[in-house]
Amino acid sequence: MNMSARSPRTASASPAVLAQRLASTRAKTMALAAPLSEADCQVQAMPDASPVKWHLAHVTWFFETFVLERFEPGFKPHNPAFRVLFNSYYNGVGEQHPRAQRGLVTRPSLAEVVAWRTAVDERLQQQLQHNTEPALLRLVELGVQHEQQHQELLLTDLLVLLSMNPLNPVYTPRWPLAPVSPVSQAWLPMVATPGQMSSVGHDADAGSFVFDNETPRHQQHLHPFELARRLVTHGEWLDFVRDGAYQQPRWWLSAGWDWVRRESIVAPLYWRRCGDNVHDDWRVFTLHGEVPLDPQTPITHISYFEADAFARWFSAQHPDQASTRLPTEFEWEHAAQLHTAASLASGNFLESGALHPMPLTARHDGPLQLLGDVWEWTASSYAPYPGFAAWDGPVGEYNAKFMVDQMVLRGGSCVTPRSHVRTSYRNFFPTPTRWQFNGLRLARDQR
Amino acid sequence: MNMSARSPRTASASPAVLAQRLASTRAKTMALAAPLSEADCQVQAMPDASPVKWHLAHVTWFFETFVLERFEPGFKPHNPAFRVLFNSYYNGVGEQHPRAQRGLVTRPSLAEVVAWRTAVDERLQQQLQHNTEPALLRLVELGVQHEQQHQELLLTDLLVLLSMNPLNPVYTPRWPLAPVSPVSQAWLPMVATPGQMSSVGHDADAGSFVFDNETPRHQQHLHPFELARRLVTHGEWLDFVRDGAYQQPRWWLSAGWDWVRRESIVAPLYWRRCGDNVHDDWRVFTLHGEVPLDPQTPITHISYFEADAFARWFSAQHPDQASTRLPTEFEWEHAAQLHTAASLASGNFLESGALHPMPLTARHDGPLQLLGDVWEWTASSYAPYPGFAAWDGPVGEYNAKFMVDQMVLRGGSCVTPRSHVRTSYRNFFPTPTRWQFNGLRLARDQR
Amino acid sequence: MNMSARSPRTASASPAVLAQRLASTRAKTMALAAPLSEADCQVQAMPDASPVKWHLAHVTWFFETFVLERFEPGFKPHNPAFRVLFNSYYNGVGEQHPRAQRGLVTRPSLAEVVAWRTAVDERLQQQLQHNTEPALLRLVELGVQHEQQHQELLLTDLLVLLSMNPLNPVYTPRWPLAPVSPVSQAWLPMVATPGQMSSVGHDADAGSFVFDNETPRHQQHLHPFELARRLVTHGEWLDFVRDGAYQQPRWWLSAGWDWVRRESIVAPLYWRRCGDNVHDDWRVFTLHGEVPLDPQTPITHISYFEADAFARWFSAQHPDQASTRLPTEFEWEHAAQLHTAASLASGNFLESGALHPMPLTARHDGPLQLLGDVWEWTASSYAPYPGFAAWDGPVGEYNAKFMVDQMVLRGGSCVTPRSHVRTSYRNFFPTPTRWQFNGLRLARDQR
Amino acid sequence: MNMSARSPRTASASPAVLAQRLASTRAKTMALAAPLSEADCQVQAMPDASPVKWHLAHVTWFFETFVLERFEPGFKPHNPAFRVLFNSYYNGVGEQHPRAQRGLVTRPSLAEVVAWRTAVDERLQQQLQHNTEPALLRLVELGVQHEQQHQELLLTDLLVLLSMNPLNPVYTPRWPLAPVSPVSQAWLPMVATPGQMSSVGHDADAGSFVFDNETPRHQQHLHPFELARRLVTHGEWLDFVRDGAYQQPRWWLSAGWDWVRRESIVAPLYWRRCGDNVHDDWRVFTLHGEVPLDPQTPITHISYFEADAFARWFSAQHPDQASTRLPTEFEWEHAAQLHTAASLASGNFLESGALHPMPLTARHDGPLQLLGDVWEWTASSYAPYPGFAAWDGPVGEYNAKFMVDQMVLRGGSCVTPRSHVRTSYRNFFPTPTRWQFNGLRLARDQR
Repeated sequence: MNMSARSPRTASASPAVLAQRLASTRAKTMALAAPLSEADCQVQAMPDASPVKWHLAHVTWFFETFVLERFEPGFKPHNPAFRVLFNSYYNGVGEQHPRAQRGLVTRPSLAEVVAWRTAVDERLQQQLQHNTEPALLRLVELGVQHEQQHQELLLTDLLVLLSMNPLNPVYTPRWPLAPVSPVSQAWLPMVATPGQMSSVGHDADAGSFVFDNETPRHQQHLHPFELARRLVTHGEWLDFVRDGAYQQPRWWLSAGWDWVRRESIVAPLYWRRCGDNVHDDWRVFTLHGEVPLDPQTPITHISYFEADAFARWFSAQHPDQASTRLPTEFEWEHAAQLHTAASLASGNFLESGALHPMPLTARHDGPLQLLGDVWEWTASSYAPYPGFAAWDGPVGEYNAKFMVDQMVLRGGSCVTPRSHVRTSYRNFFPTPTRWQFNGLRLARDQR
Repeated sequence: MNMSARSPRTASASPAVLAQRLASTRAKTMALAAPLSEADCQVQAMPDASPVKWHLAHVTWFFETFVLERFEPGFKPHNPAFRVLFNSYYNGVGEQHPRAQRGLVTRPSLAEVVAWRTAVDERLQQQLQHNTEPALLRLVELGVQHEQQHQELLLTDLLVLLSMNPLNPVYTPRWPLAPVSPVSQAWLPMVATPGQMSSVGHDADAGSFVFDNETPRHQQHLHPFELARRLVTHGEWLDFVRDGAYQQPRWWLSAGWDWVRRESIVAPLYWRRCGDNVHDDWRVFTLHGEVPLDPQTPITHISYFEADAFARWFSAQHPDQASTRLPTEFEWEHAAQLHTAASLASGNFLESGALHPMPLTARHDGPLQLLGDVWEWTASSYAPYPGFAAWDGPVGEYNAKFMVDQMVLRGGSCVTPRSHVRTSYRNFFPTPTRWQFNGLRLARDQR
Repeated sequence: MNMSARSPRTASASPAVLAQRLASTRAKTMALAAPLSEADCQVQAMPDASPVKWHLAHVTWFFETFVLERFEPGFKPHNPAFRVLFNSYYNGVGEQHPRAQRGLVTRPSLAEVVAWRTAVDERLQQQLQHNTEPALLRLVELGVQHEQQHQELLLTDLLVLLSMNPLNPVYTPRWPLAPVSPVSQAWLPMVATPGQMSSVGHDADAGSFVFDNETPRHQQHLHPFELARRLVTHGEWLDFVRDGAYQQPRWWLSAGWDWVRRESIVAPLYWRRCGDNVHDDWRVFTLHGEVPLDPQTPITHISYFEADAFARWFSAQHPDQASTRLPTEFEWEHAAQLHTAASLASGNFLESGALHPMPLTARHDGPLQLLGDVWEWTASSYAPYPGFAAWDGPVGEYNAKFMVDQMVLRGGSCVTPRSHVRTSYRNFFPTPTRWQFNGLRLARDQR
Repeated sequence: MNMSARSPRTASASPAVLAQRLASTRAKTMALAAPLSEADCQVQAMPDASPVKWHLAHVTWFFETFVLERFEPGFKPHNPAFRVLFNSYYNGVGEQHPRAQRGLVTRPSLAEVVAWRTAVDERLQQQLQHNTEPALLRLVELGVQHEQQHQELLLTDLLVLLSMNPLNPVYTPRWPLAPVSPVSQAWLPMVATPGQMSSVGHDADAGSFVFDNETPRHQQHLHPFELARRLVTHGEWLDFVRDGAYQQPRWWLSAGWDWVRRESIVAPLYWRRCGDNVHDDWRVFTLHGEVPLDPQTPITHISYFEADAFARWFSAQHPDQASTRLPTEFEWEHAAQLHTAASLASGNFLESGALHPMPLTARHDGPLQLLGDVWEWTASSYAPYPGFAAWDGPVGEYNAKFMVDQMVLRGGSCVTPRSHVRTSYRNFFPTPTRWQFNGLRLARDQR
């Protein structure tokens, strides 16, 4: 693996700082799993959602395979069978255990996996004490970033599992939701001049960690547009449902309408009807169990198809205004660069412990909730930036091989660690994806 | 529920004896689960195979629903949600949790299920101390019999799960298989006179427990036939495999050949090839882990299609002899009635701890291994006996509603409790079933 | 192919008579196809239903492969590619074109297939003029019987196709259905003595054609039972539907209830609701197009699951009478042997041109409609008779390899040629089969 | 339908010219169907490929529904049932017959559909004689363009059908392929200045017909790149196959590799192996039947996944050169605008009668084969242009609702009418699509 030009970077000032971040990230993961039983950690609720135990093991595999195997003198694997068992999708490393069968692996036990975590942590810390090779530091940094991603997935995958239990189990008791006054929607002009160039993306060498898919920083051509001040809410979505939008093809892309009918979709993933018809009340399943629908909270757990249909339906409710649509990822990034501080301030991340998008309370003239709360679907398909080159070596499989048939989401969510996200960060999922904390913000052309 | 004419019987001399059998049966189930982790008990390996925790809960549900709810004054359910959650297929009791989602229910925890077991056991024992109603005793007896069936299923379902783990986990360490001398096959004449009548089945009122599907005792018309002295072995099956029988349509029923090709079947369920071609060695996955194929052990984990094809292939290897075939269930029962004592003596049941069919060592002139070792596929489809009436009430769903599209198996297996099986006992499974300990014995018309 | 002991027989007195029957059978097939366009003949409506053109070709393939190839000196195939293309399921003859792709073969054209038919007819007639070998005559007879079976299938498969066209096309205009008075149901005692032996089946050498699956003639043990005088009607089925029986699990076998829910079954195959709820009118699609439901006509196009559920539901409507059930195939055959003449007289076969089961008008003390109108589901699974041996050679694949996972139907239908059926005739289909003209007659134990 | 701002345009100078184009286009469609039997026209080979008869009917439905229904005084439909039966996907017009069941509609007959065509043609011509409303002319123009698209689909769908017939039928006899000398690949610089702006797309009002998805004309930002002079050939693809590229994950996008394994893909759609291994000869199925693989012809019938993998593999064969990739749709359009005349001159369209991509023979310094031969996969997903607005009314469903989960192809193919294609034309298909005449041309960044 050539670690020169095309490899991850680390922003940590020193190995000691990195070692500390490594330790706290690893501890945070264990803390997320703490309220769970061995059974909760074992089960795979659907092929796309991995068991918690698998997440705990896979992130450890990542460090063992990409860091220890390369840098530890006389390296021996903790257990040679784990190399295949906990490889997710790195063909460069070799075979993988079938994804849909991750939940069947009851041995190694949870305790054995935790012991493996501890052993690898010790070996990593030992390396960081003696070895200051930049290549080592960079891969440890990548492992930390990777583990943060799996912290989010651990929670989204757990939510799928708990939601399929008729007893409505609770991951953590519900937070006291203080009643808030609605924040009205507003449209904020973002680009004044037609054809304005905006710098987007990130330099690979800018002195902090970025994924290869955020590079290189380059110019994009933007047209005047306005961005909604806040995210679309559960209350607005309730209007969409009650208006019968899930039964009317005119709001939907063709593939979206096929999906709605094939899957019998009538509402967001975790909505549950309490009565007999669409005008009845709904409840929502969350990591706090089943709770009443709160109209002020941002909508989440919707597919791209639903986000796109909502934008079209919303336009038709306001025929005198410009058509609403999803923003492109570059429009979003342009706005986020201008309002990073406020976005961070108004953002709801993993650290808040809310584990659900929160009603807007902050007051600010610019756009709010750009970072945190929910990943925002954009109108952009996931593609390489001009001049993009994947990282060298097996870690080149991290992002590049997924650049087709997916849409970009931006901004992080309520289960993303705050230190993990940034305005150039690109998340990506296929159009029908709903089990992530995905929502939307509207945009429109400026007239 | 009218407990008069059409209801289960109990053979226990007294409530005290029954209470003792109840206690030991319930304890045996817990002993079977003892070597397993909470994760092992949680997972459902395929829709047909239930999690161990579900088995522990469902048999408890059976007692609570069919015994306590009816006989306990002021009955209150341990947890009302369990009524739906652990109902297997009794529409008369109400809704059921979807079968394929049994493994997703991580709550209640294993500990909660065990606590429920304990609580129900205490309440049952209390009833048995004060209440001597025959109807109560009969339903407790049925619950004991039912729990014995689930002891077998607990092990067969666990075997599926362990077999899907690439680490080849072991349920219990392997027994020391003493080398034995092969017992040669022999053909034992069973009926001398054409059209001889044989009494089969069981009287419902004969003073011991039988399932409704074994009744009424009635006459069947038999023709002269011979029965193989012993079960077909792994060694004989290896010849079948090496002769290319899985690649040749001429041995197979049409539906069997479709199944072989659609499922890419090349050997019994748990056989694993060690080399590259059909002449290479095979290993076999068992509850003792992966072990070398032992030619003297009875073949097991084969479908009806494979059993039937083997009989046809075997005939073609011995063109000078009468055609071999599977026996009918009545031929089998006729023979077993004549040789019950020897069959029990030579049988290998759950109590042996072998948990695998064992090489034949006993010497006896009559047929051996009729009881225990493996369930023997018969040529009979599962149908009601003349004059059959299902039990009254919800327990009438126990057997009767499955009387179509299944074949009868006889004799019990190495994971059947010895006290559970008898010569009139009818097991039944669809033709492709392989995860049970199913094998075969050959028969042929007498010339 | 050894034509001695185990081969088809012919009843024809002379080659000349057989030649005449061959010619008229072949002409009848062409007459059935006459009202159809090339497109109608081309399409395969579902994997189980073959195109009309395929039927025309396959029966010709049967004669070419089993007769001409063996008996014609210097035989050359009409087109060597047809050997694979029109082989249905004879592995002994070699490869087969995939069943589900029969409708994709637009070449050879219909005209080419008809030309092939003509050429083979001429070659067969030539053989019959010079060659009087019994083996030849027997295989020609088999080919005639085979073609009669495909006459029935041609019509049932065509009905599927026409039913899927929203324009409701008509195969032949509807017959004038004269209104008839209902014939009330009656129960006819059939066996007086418990354990009476009845001879069933057919001798292979009895001087007329029979299929191997009807042999050997043997004794069956019957218990006193009563048989319904007539078939169950559309009117009686309407009561079953209106009573909500398709929504209530208690009437259904477990596999049947699964099927009802999985396939969203609410009525027989070709019933179409005219209004909004179950009490509304229904119309029925037939070979005469969509017609009003006629309550006096026998019910048809139902699965075994529906027939079985109806018998159980019917019992519950008459709690003071003995339980109704389907007859076994031996009970049916016993009754039919006693009433063959009346059954033929009251029967409605292909020759009537009705192409639909007809209201009963005949008056007779014994059971009516035993032959013709609809195939009657029996409670018997399809299994070999004691001492059964399949025909030798490739034609041994005709019946024997299907003897599993199917139920026996008896009596022929309104699209069966009258000369094709007899009281020992065994038809067989899997339990969910509905596109054949399948109906039912009730039976009950005599009290 | 508001035909003002957002509606199709026509380029025809006069109604008379348009009437002439209408007549010749309609006649061309019939000429394409002329060599086919009624059976050939009836069958649907797979859900995505419609029957020829359906194409003949649907384009007629388009004229009847969008032109006659609106402009003909006292309009009556030819057959009211056709409105649903031949509606493809216009929810604005109402219900649609299920796509996968188009092949089951044997009535109306081919003759009836042809009669309908004739009747509608006469009514259209009558309108064009008296009515000069621009809105009418525009919709007739759209109908002509639409029918040209279905001429291409008629042939691609027919090819699927013929390819599934083991007799290898021939649509038209093979053209005499004159041997040609290979034209070596070359890399043509296309953009000199970084960040150069290029005008792409088309003005909706530019005086000629364009689809809404090509509008508005707007600026795109391009970076220096080079474009391959010619298309990738069958010969180059043979190297790709022989190198084992279909067995090596490293060349494939993740979704592509999943697709290769799930579908067992080993070569382009219509390649057929003549020998036993990958180094053997291949033959190719075409509209001229099965022919030897011609190394000089452009590759076709490949998916996006294959095109993308080839580009990555090709790079690795030339490690000293810049990485090859697919061009974006804007890079392609930029080049095509510069070389339109030569592209048209070197292009092979429907009119050539070759019905297969042809070896390059023309000599020219610029890129060749940009128009015709094969649709070229681009790296661009199908998305709306900045400021895009779909046509008003039901025809707005023509293109806009497909703008997700598809990739853009450019340039037309050997079965596209020459007058139908232009440099701004955007075709689009999902990534696994292979039954269209899809190929590729490589591009690379300029170093």
